[in-house]
Amino acid sequence: MSSTQKTYRVAILGATGLVGRTMLDILEERRFPVSDIVPLASARSAGREISFKGRTYIMQEPSKEVFADVDIALFSAGSGASREWASVAASQGAVVIDNSSAFRMDPDVPLVVPEVNPGAIFREDGRPAMIIANPNCSTIQMVVVLKPLHERYHIRRVIVSTYQSVTGKGKAGRDALESELAGEKQESFTHVHQIAYNAVPHIDVFQENGYTKEEMKMVNETRKIMGDDAISVSPTTVRIPVYGGHGEALNIEFDDDFDIDEVRRLLASSPGIAVQDDPSQDLYPMPLTAYEKDEVFVGRLRRDYWHPKTLNMWIVADNLRKGAATNAVQIAEQLVGRL
Amino acid sequence: MSSTQKTYRVAILGATGLVGRTMLDILEERRFPVSDIVPLASARSAGREISFKGRTYIMQEPSKEVFADVDIALFSAGSGASREWASVAASQGAVVIDNSSAFRMDPDVPLVVPEVNPGAIFREDGRPAMIIANPNCSTIQMVVVLKPLHERYHIRRVIVSTYQSVTGKGKAGRDALESELAGEKQESFTHVHQIAYNAVPHIDVFQENGYTKEEMKMVNETRKIMGDDAISVSPTTVRIPVYGGHGEALNIEFDDDFDIDEVRRLLASSPGIAVQDDPSQDLYPMPLTAYEKDEVFVGRLRRDYWHPKTLNMWIVADNLRKGAATNAVQIAEQLVGRL
Repeated sequence: MSSTQKTYRVAILGATGLVGRTMLDILEERRFPVSDIVPLASARSAGREISFKGRTYIMQEPSKEVFADVDIALFSAGSGASREWASVAASQGAVVIDNSSAFRMDPDVPLVVPEVNPGAIFREDGRPAMIIANPNCSTIQMVVVLKPLHERYHIRRVIVSTYQSVTGKGKAGRDALESELAGEKQESFTHVHQIAYNAVPHIDVFQENGYTKEEMKMVNETRKIMGDDAISVSPTTVRIPVYGGHGEALNIEFDDDFDIDEVRRLLASSPGIAVQDDPSQDLYPMPLTAYEKDEVFVGRLRRDYWHPKTLNMWIVADNLRKGAATNAVQIAEQLVGRL
Repeated sequence: MSSTQKTYRVAILGATGLVGRTMLDILEERRFPVSDIVPLASARSAGREISFKGRTYIMQEPSKEVFADVDIALFSAGSGASREWASVAASQGAVVIDNSSAFRMDPDVPLVVPEVNPGAIFREDGRPAMIIANPNCSTIQMVVVLKPLHERYHIRRVIVSTYQSVTGKGKAGRDALESELAGEKQESFTHVHQIAYNAVPHIDVFQENGYTKEEMKMVNETRKIMGDDAISVSPTTVRIPVYGGHGEALNIEFDDDFDIDEVRRLLASSPGIAVQDDPSQDLYPMPLTAYEKDEVFVGRLRRDYWHPKTLNMWIVADNLRKGAATNAVQIAEQLVGRL
């Protein structure tokens, strides 16, 4: 790139959170063309310093004025803050990439995983949508893997069981596990129940249909991102005492039959995927090895011998990275040269 | 029962292991009519004392002679020990209830879960088989739940993802997790890889077909216990850092349609099952709450809205109890009055 490359003013709402801090790390790692950052946080954290690329910034509270010169605003401060500030930022000319669930199912808001549907970011006139939603972590890693398989074999049905990291609840989630493991008494359970030495089949709130909101995100967001309402996802989401990423056991039924070696090659050559599948070397994806990586790791690839045209696999991705911050920054990368 | 009730001499092979010790606890808890016990262990542990119902016993090494007056022998010392001693004990007149995988798929050996197929214990002449196999832990808890559903709706297909306790590897498995959490360096990984803060999709050894032996046990043992080779089980088994029991996410497709309230009532009234299914009270099965209990806990009961006649659920049971020791003692209870 030339030295005259355009650079962007990037706001981060929720800069003190685990995802917000990871967003800053990833902007730097991926050499995103940042002119400067505008770190935003609640009144509690405003005034504190934060460093980025060797410069020190002071955290501010969000306001209409603060978004005036912002090109791209990465939001990760929860649905309430997103509902309050997204349209304000957009009205000031900032493109908002929102990590909350506030706008994901809004038909006017694109829900984007760059490996899957990057084109959804842009309107017919070539301009980007002013609010772009970043999907739920469990959904992102799944659709990265489903996309090439759907194009080749056409997916009919997915049954998924998740093994989700405590960092899905941010720093509070991580701290809860640590203090529980240290034997400290918890007044309230961040993960609904104690998570140390436990597995809790309850992420986000229960809906009337018996599924949790986390589960219904996997059902609905997958259809929207894949652009195919015929794909059915039947999920069970479970929190377990790990940090490094979310695991998912997937059983995928296709319309067309497949060859397992072709599946392996197809996935290995698809963007954002790293195949780790050598049982003879005890190699398969794990949260410990996916930690701080950007890929979706795929392994345990094997035919479901008990049902036709059906595949079993196990995938893991770092939920703070590809499941949140990396995906948001990858969306921002699509905007480079288009703003 | 009258004071003249017949009592039995019960040998425990592997009395120092987690399952062996739990067997002793459960014999006592359930007031099994024991005259005395014969605790057996390897040369390393022989000579050590063990207490049972207030009496002290000396551990012995197994030998032909030691089985001479034994009525029932509970084996839990691994497949090698079972292969070496089961036929010896049987030839001495002891009925062997074997917790290893050595004889499970032997067509001459019944594989028994008392809630499912108690009749398989006995031959046509009314005498019990001299070797009776106790199934794999993951299989036992699943078939307890599948049995009443199969009778009512006829099961076609089960997709199962497991969340398995470290105690599946006995004391070594528990100690590995504790020392890893304490930050102690492990020379060898009991769970193939570090298990603290991890999820390892690898239990027992890999087979040529890409499934692990643990997974194939769920496939094959389920058919044998249920007495129906048409039931297909498609499994992914995963070790996670919990103690209290194994979790399983089940997706079950039936031939006949069901009513979800009827399913709940059917399970609640079936032996060995405790329904814990009240999302409004954050009530569902968990390893922490299943610990040291004998039931299979069932919850998260909900229709798979994306596939006809299909049910999702989440079950947990203490793998050392119903998954091993309790089931073995329940088999022994079937023998009372029949030896």
